[in-house]
Amino acid sequence: MSTITVPTTTQTKPSGLYRLAARRDPEQRTIVRVGEATFGGGEPTIIAGPCAVENREQTLASALAVRAAGGQLLRGGAFKPRTSPYSFQGLGEEGLAILAEARELTGLPIVTEALEPDQIPIVARYADMIQIGARNMANFPLLRRAGQSGRPILLKRGMSATVEEWLMAAEYILAEGNPNVVLCERGIRSFDPLLRFTLDLNAVPLVRELSHLPIIVDPSHGTGRRSLVRQMSIAAIAAGSDGLIIEMHPDRDAALCDGDQSITPEELTEIVTATRVVGAALSPVWAA
Amino acid sequence: MSTITVPTTTQTKPSGLYRLAARRDPEQRTIVRVGEATFGGGEPTIIAGPCAVENREQTLASALAVRAAGGQLLRGGAFKPRTSPYSFQGLGEEGLAILAEARELTGLPIVTEALEPDQIPIVARYADMIQIGARNMANFPLLRRAGQSGRPILLKRGMSATVEEWLMAAEYILAEGNPNVVLCERGIRSFDPLLRFTLDLNAVPLVRELSHLPIIVDPSHGTGRRSLVRQMSIAAIAAGSDGLIIEMHPDRDAALCDGDQSITPEELTEIVTATRVVGAALSPVWAA
Amino acid sequence: MSTITVPTTTQTKPSGLYRLAARRDPEQRTIVRVGEATFGGGEPTIIAGPCAVENREQTLASALAVRAAGGQLLRGGAFKPRTSPYSFQGLGEEGLAILAEARELTGLPIVTEALEPDQIPIVARYADMIQIGARNMANFPLLRRAGQSGRPILLKRGMSATVEEWLMAAEYILAEGNPNVVLCERGIRSFDPLLRFTLDLNAVPLVRELSHLPIIVDPSHGTGRRSLVRQMSIAAIAAGSDGLIIEMHPDRDAALCDGDQSITPEELTEIVTATRVVGAALSPVWAA
Amino acid sequence: MSTITVPTTTQTKPSGLYRLAARRDPEQRTIVRVGEATFGGGEPTIIAGPCAVENREQTLASALAVRAAGGQLLRGGAFKPRTSPYSFQGLGEEGLAILAEARELTGLPIVTEALEPDQIPIVARYADMIQIGARNMANFPLLRRAGQSGRPILLKRGMSATVEEWLMAAEYILAEGNPNVVLCERGIRSFDPLLRFTLDLNAVPLVRELSHLPIIVDPSHGTGRRSLVRQMSIAAIAAGSDGLIIEMHPDRDAALCDGDQSITPEELTEIVTATRVVGAALSPVWAA
Repeated sequence: MSTITVPTTTQTKPSGLYRLAARRDPEQRTIVRVGEATFGGGEPTIIAGPCAVENREQTLASALAVRAAGGQLLRGGAFKPRTSPYSFQGLGEEGLAILAEARELTGLPIVTEALEPDQIPIVARYADMIQIGARNMANFPLLRRAGQSGRPILLKRGMSATVEEWLMAAEYILAEGNPNVVLCERGIRSFDPLLRFTLDLNAVPLVRELSHLPIIVDPSHGTGRRSLVRQMSIAAIAAGSDGLIIEMHPDRDAALCDGDQSITPEELTEIVTATRVVGAALSPVWAA
Repeated sequence: MSTITVPTTTQTKPSGLYRLAARRDPEQRTIVRVGEATFGGGEPTIIAGPCAVENREQTLASALAVRAAGGQLLRGGAFKPRTSPYSFQGLGEEGLAILAEARELTGLPIVTEALEPDQIPIVARYADMIQIGARNMANFPLLRRAGQSGRPILLKRGMSATVEEWLMAAEYILAEGNPNVVLCERGIRSFDPLLRFTLDLNAVPLVRELSHLPIIVDPSHGTGRRSLVRQMSIAAIAAGSDGLIIEMHPDRDAALCDGDQSITPEELTEIVTATRVVGAALSPVWAA
Repeated sequence: MSTITVPTTTQTKPSGLYRLAARRDPEQRTIVRVGEATFGGGEPTIIAGPCAVENREQTLASALAVRAAGGQLLRGGAFKPRTSPYSFQGLGEEGLAILAEARELTGLPIVTEALEPDQIPIVARYADMIQIGARNMANFPLLRRAGQSGRPILLKRGMSATVEEWLMAAEYILAEGNPNVVLCERGIRSFDPLLRFTLDLNAVPLVRELSHLPIIVDPSHGTGRRSLVRQMSIAAIAAGSDGLIIEMHPDRDAALCDGDQSITPEELTEIVTATRVVGAALSPVWAA
Repeated sequence: MSTITVPTTTQTKPSGLYRLAARRDPEQRTIVRVGEATFGGGEPTIIAGPCAVENREQTLASALAVRAAGGQLLRGGAFKPRTSPYSFQGLGEEGLAILAEARELTGLPIVTEALEPDQIPIVARYADMIQIGARNMANFPLLRRAGQSGRPILLKRGMSATVEEWLMAAEYILAEGNPNVVLCERGIRSFDPLLRFTLDLNAVPLVRELSHLPIIVDPSHGTGRRSLVRQMSIAAIAAGSDGLIIEMHPDRDAALCDGDQSITPEELTEIVTATRVVGAALSPVWAA
């Protein structure tokens, strides 16, 4: 008789593989603080801003719009990972300085991406939270350096990473002594041509089941379609997400990147309001 | 210079391809009535019950539990599509008769699957709504016969169907003169071994953007993990789903199929409550 | 400590799940005969012809071209599974009669698809081999009826079916007493927009490891790009495929369906020649 | 009537996006030389060796086995990208020195991976060809530094990268003035639990259609199943691959990583022989 592999997708075994990231008991939840914002503390936390720091004006306008909408952190890329070498690659340190000025202006902590280990120190100098992008989820030297940075890390899921591979990537950061990791679901690669990526909200309760780390959701990259951002934001909060990171541009048709998935300041305000409504409605449900 | 040709199926074009399923204007929404239940009318509608009709006792107990939990329709399979020819294949007409008795007892309309064109008449005789399963989404003769049945149809998405292919499947039913189609997202095939399928909530706002048909969500098959059912149910409603179809079993460890993804009557009650809370909280948001 | 599923993708256990399809020992290989053609007998067997039987002229011209190119069977659809209800659905029985006439003319056995259980008898009356298409791989009533037909069956892999689910589908046919099943790999759904489907040649050695059934490959649907058909045909034979099924049209720009992936009679001749060269070169290698 | 918008990344357009990587005419083919080995020159070139450099003995034994089997280059990892931070991470520079000694002993050029920009200089000092792994295909700073290294680069495809994204990654290297890029297909992420990855041989003719760069295939990572390596190697050559990179271990059950997909020296010898047979048989076919 022939023999054959049958995967046992629902069996369980102890997962020493990510021993720091694994939840030890149902009550264990890590809270990550970035300035006055917290991830994992109950209320959804909103990060918003443009894909890229394009110039001083656009960035300051974005920051004011994020604050006015009720967002708690400003995002914006100074070092941009671009599929083509001929696309706009970001303003580099000049962009970081603009972000810092936006923080001065608004009081919003800033989140921005580092693309290689040697960028970690400079990004750590300007930013309040360092983003590791989806393309770098398995860039292990970068994860290690992020673990040594002293800054909270926003770790995006790789576009075809399993949830356990993602937790293992977090483990690289935690193992360097940095406990402040926020996970971010940002869409997986799938087959429907109407979506740029397929936002995988299943990851939210799955991560909460397996890990004590906070998790937020990026509905902008996660769908690539601005028309879906509002509803997927609300759904993410209802699924138990600790927050959102949303691409918003004060003049999205002029955006240097990701205009198709950027929303307006007005839409951001609506989303923040809606997530508060849902969060408030669900808090007795979660508590029950 | 090299040029790239892309398959015509992914190019931008007016969707004359599903002209009956396509939404003509933002206000157009179809409401499908099944007994006293409605899909698309605002309030989320809950279908629940066991994977299979196993016997009279289990089915009547399920029906009573669904009604007690606040569900509006009873599901249960009499003809089961099973991967292995050696697995339990369902009770057939005897199962349909048991479902009818459960309706007598509880007043709940029943939804059950037909696997082939010749089963449509007998299923239509007993059931209030006929389910076309994911494996049969592109079984075109079955879709046509479903279109001629006079019964509302619950059309599940194929496990690797694009949203447009799914709307085209609905078009087969509509084109036979049956306007009562409810779409059901039930998970797509993806790569994470922790999930049986990947519930694709993006499909909810996407279908609402493209079509006037109601859409509901199956978090049980869509994840294959009972621990995710509650949160993905709430997220589905928050994404704009018109309802849910949930596998519940009064004694899930004894279930003949799908025990791993079945919830208890108590969990169903909690979910119905939570979806009402979310639905009520969001109704002013949707209206805005 | 948290516990978690870890799939054991390389462990093995006895697979009673497809006991008739499973290979009992390395020497066990089934040979399926269709007229004078054989599948599994060593030499690659080529099936070719148009997507659809469009009319008498096109079909007879196709059959002559297949024979001239060295192909052993003629394919052509009389009942077509089309994504849109408004696309050409095939000529039905008239198409079957045309195929039979083409067989008269050329001596080539014919392979054509049945879409529903009730079509099996009429297709069996005209055709030498009955095709079950990818969309119907898990249409279990159709598989059962195919098992009762007395005809050899060409069973295409579902577009997101695992190899074991596919062998389980074959088991439905075998369990009805029909041992003459030829498997056909035809591309899986994946993410690259340059391909209609992703031809999965891994399935060839994997099926040969797990099963005694012959397996052939469809490089036309499997890629959706005519420019890839020649090289993927040769690769399929080198991977151990028992044959090919190729879409060829005498006037492909006028084809009613699948023109983008159809090749010319001249290209078919080259492919048949190349596969013989590879088959001959590799036969001592396989024997070693 | 509703209209559908498709993400711009999938629309038809001239590929100015990878203008250096794009093939300008059907005759344009780049040949990359590494020591006496060539990629793209007609004969398939075989790279083989262990997953990791574990120690001097194992590496020298591997090198001798590769040479004896007829392989042209030695592979082996000194810096290993491992999913878990607690797995063996490679010997680092000590491993590079062992590889250099193996080259001394056998005359085989060596290929080994760099994981971060700062490792490029040291890897370039020891190795003849630098590998960029699948996890780093979109690590743009690493690609740029590889482009400045003066060494030929082996660029693996990301596990969910489209062929065009991969060519764009190559463009980053080419744009730095390094024309010596060899592409390597190594399996994409898909859904079948019997395979670690799904080797995508469609990429071979597709890359040859779009680009002038040589392409080789990794059947070891590409399947994760040693039993498939031989047949997928032969199929890769038949599909038009310019070579192979194969994991071979002199004592695979003792391997520190990837033992499940490693083959023995004897199997390597058979594969080299078989690929020569196929290459020789097909060379008049390709020329025709």
